Order: sequence, then structure tokens, then C-alpha cells
Amino acid sequence: MIEKLGNPEIGRRGLMLVLSSPSGAGKTTLTKLLRDEEPSLTLSISVTTRPRRPSEVDGVHYFFKTADEFKDMRDRGDLLEWAEVHGNFYGSPRKEIDKALAGGNDILFDIDYQGAMQVRKTAPDDVVSIFILPPSIPELRRRLERRAEDSATVIQQRLKNAKNEIDRWRDYDYVLVNDDLQATFAKIRAILAAERLKRERQIGLPKFVSGLLAHL
Amino acid sequence: MIEKLGNPEIGRRGLMLVLSSPSGAGKTTLTKLLRDEEPSLTLSISVTTRPRRPSEVDGVHYFFKTADEFKDMRDRGDLLEWAEVHGNFYGSPRKEIDKALAGGNDILFDIDYQGAMQVRKTAPDDVVSIFILPPSIPELRRRLERRAEDSATVIQQRLKNAKNEIDRWRDYDYVLVNDDLQATFAKIRAILAAERLKRERQIGLPKFVSGLLAHL
Repeated sequence: MIEKLGNPEIGRRGLMLVLSSPSGAGKTTLTKLLRDEEPSLTLSISVTTRPRRPSEVDGVHYFFKTADEFKDMRDRGDLLEWAEVHGNFYGSPRKEIDKALAGGNDILFDIDYQGAMQVRKTAPDDVVSIFILPPSIPELRRRLERRAEDSATVIQQRLKNAKNEIDRWRDYDYVLVNDDLQATFAKIRAILAAERLKRERQIGLPKFVSGLLAHL
Repeated sequence: MIEKLGNPEIGRRGLMLVLSSPSGAGKTTLTKLLRDEEPSLTLSISVTTRPRRPSEVDGVHYFFKTADEFKDMRDRGDLLEWAEVHGNFYGSPRKEIDKALAGGNDILFDIDYQGAMQVRKTAPDDVVSIFILPPSIPELRRRLERRAEDSATVIQQRLKNAKNEIDRWRDYDYVLVNDDLQATFAKIRAILAAERLKRERQIGLPKFVSGLLAHL
């Protein structure tokens, strides 16, 4: 596990990075940058009951399950968080995540606010949560309009949702104002680097320090 | 308050950075680098009862006080931490520190383990503590010998002290293994950047978010 800003020789427990923001504040681009530049950060693969699209691969994009299989997993406590969206179920499988964390791998969660709060409740010590704010509402509107793909009604709806989403900022560990994409990306990387150096996460430290003290 | 990795327009409460390490692990050099490269980080000026040396300036190197003045300060609760070393008193004046923190300035503490624990107890939310470990004991010995200024007896004593000092690693927020000075410095800067972005420290956020929401 060699990392530029880690303590390479010391075993580390992974962390769960939760990134939230209102639509248009830059989360999708930042997630893409993170996946490109932080290879030790893997995206959590969700379990879902929605039908597989032709382009999707089971175990890569999602784990596809029947509603009965999903409910069994949920009722056995095998999901770290779950939600029902438009009649389909989505959830994060606990076993895969625990394995990744124990192996020192960090996991990026692309989940909504409710999911983020569920994950934090189940594993408070493993979660690092970041909330991204837009620098201003006119700028948020411009970004939504620049996407061009959305109708005026959709943009209006997204702005209306933004109000409720922004109101959640108090539930996050870190809050960033995304006035410059590269600067915000640098901030997220600094947070990742720092959180990886937290004493509790460096589970190999007791062994390392014992080795040191044995020489004294 | 313009900082490369901060949210410039948002008022921030400063933090107290406590750096500890056994003698020879690199703390002095890292402190110097921090003071050169992080201008927003100021060193806490201690109060002391020890006589002023000709080269020292009152209010720059120390606040020089009589024993009675010092005891008055201590008994009034005006010191964040204090200690008696070789018959002289040393302490950190609370008022100066509170003023700096409220103004968004970070303070670097060059205090020993006991002082660090006192500061943490008085102001747990404001303290960020980092413990620096040497990569190995032979390397620690080499670094102590390289200083050349110390006799073999002094080096032996420092190595003996190192054992007790290293044992304190569990009391710190972050633990770094200093196997490369520049890499360790980069880690400290990442920790500083991240800690400055903690939600609780950005005391201007409620106002900023209210301003955002007023546009929706």
C-alpha cells in the first residue's frame, strides 16, 4: 500500500468518503476527478432491483438482485444503507465494504443525503463526509443552464430542491465552497491525505511502535 | 484572510497546532519550515519568569514576568497551560491566544507533552495534535549523533527519554513517520488545510448559507 502522503510501511484501515452537494454544485465532475487521480479510492458498487440496462455489467455497475433477494439482504442487516427510488430498491452491501476497508482501501459513495446519514450512523468512525456548496445561487443557475440538456421546468425544480439540499450542510464534517474546480479538488485531496493519517485509522501503528521501542 | 486552500470569503476560527516528537525526530526543522511557509501560523508567545537574555525582546520571544505576576496569572486562570522547568515558570497566556483564534489565526505550540495535554483539556475543539515518529531507532541515533554538539552521555540520555516520549503517541490526533522531511512537511500542510475546512471552524458558514438561501 504505497501512497504519496501516507505512512507506507504502516497498515491502514480504509475510510468511506461521502461527497454531497445540491445538483449543479460540481459533485459529478469532482467524483470523476477523484476516480481518475486517486486510484486507491474505489466506488462502492450498489445492489439494485432495477432491471439491468444492456450496457451494464453485473458486479461492475451494480449487483442486480430480485426484490426478494434484496429484501432478504436488507432484513439480514447485509446493507449499510438502502433506499427505494421510483419503485426500485438500491443499497450498499456491507460485506464488500468491510472487506475493502479492512484491506486499507478507501471507498467513495455516490449516495444521496439519506444514504449518507444511514452510513454515518452504522459506521461513524469510518465515514468522512464533505458537503459542496455553490459560490452563489446565480452561479448555480448558470451551471444548471449550461448543461443545456434540462428544460426550464427541470432547472426550476432543481433550484427548488437545492434549497432543501443546502439546508443539510450542518450534518457534514467538512464544507467546501466550490468557486474553482481545481482548488476544490485540491481541498478534497488534502482532506483525504489528512484523514488517512488519523491515528485511529493507522491500525498498524501499535505494531510499528512496539518495533521501535524494542530497540531502546 | 486569503488562503490558497481555504474558503476565502468565509470567516474562520483559528486552530492550535501542537507538534510533538522525541528529540531527534525532526520537530525543530519541521517547525522552522512551517513558520517560513505558513505565514498565517503564528508561534504562541509564552509567559516566563526566567531572566531575559540580552538578545531577547519582551513580547517577541517571551512575555517576561516576576514570579508573583506569573502566579497571579495562573491563579486567575489566565494561562492555558503552565509548567515549572528548572525552577522557572513557563505558561501560555489565554487572552492573546483567544484573540488570535477569534481572528482566524492559527497558533503553533512549541510545548512539551504535559503542556499539550493541558491545552487539549482546556480547548479540545481548537487543538489539532500531531505526533512525529522516527522511522527507526538506529536512524534516530544517527540524527542525534549528526548534531555533533551533544556528548555521548547526552545522546544516551536523549535515547532513554525517547522511550517515554514515544509511548505518548496514542494521545495525538495524527501520527506521522518522518522518513523524509519534505514528505512529512507536505503531510503536516495537508492536515492544516483539511482542519481549516472543518465545518465547526468555519464560523462564517451560517451567514454565508443564509445569504445563499435568500436567493432561492
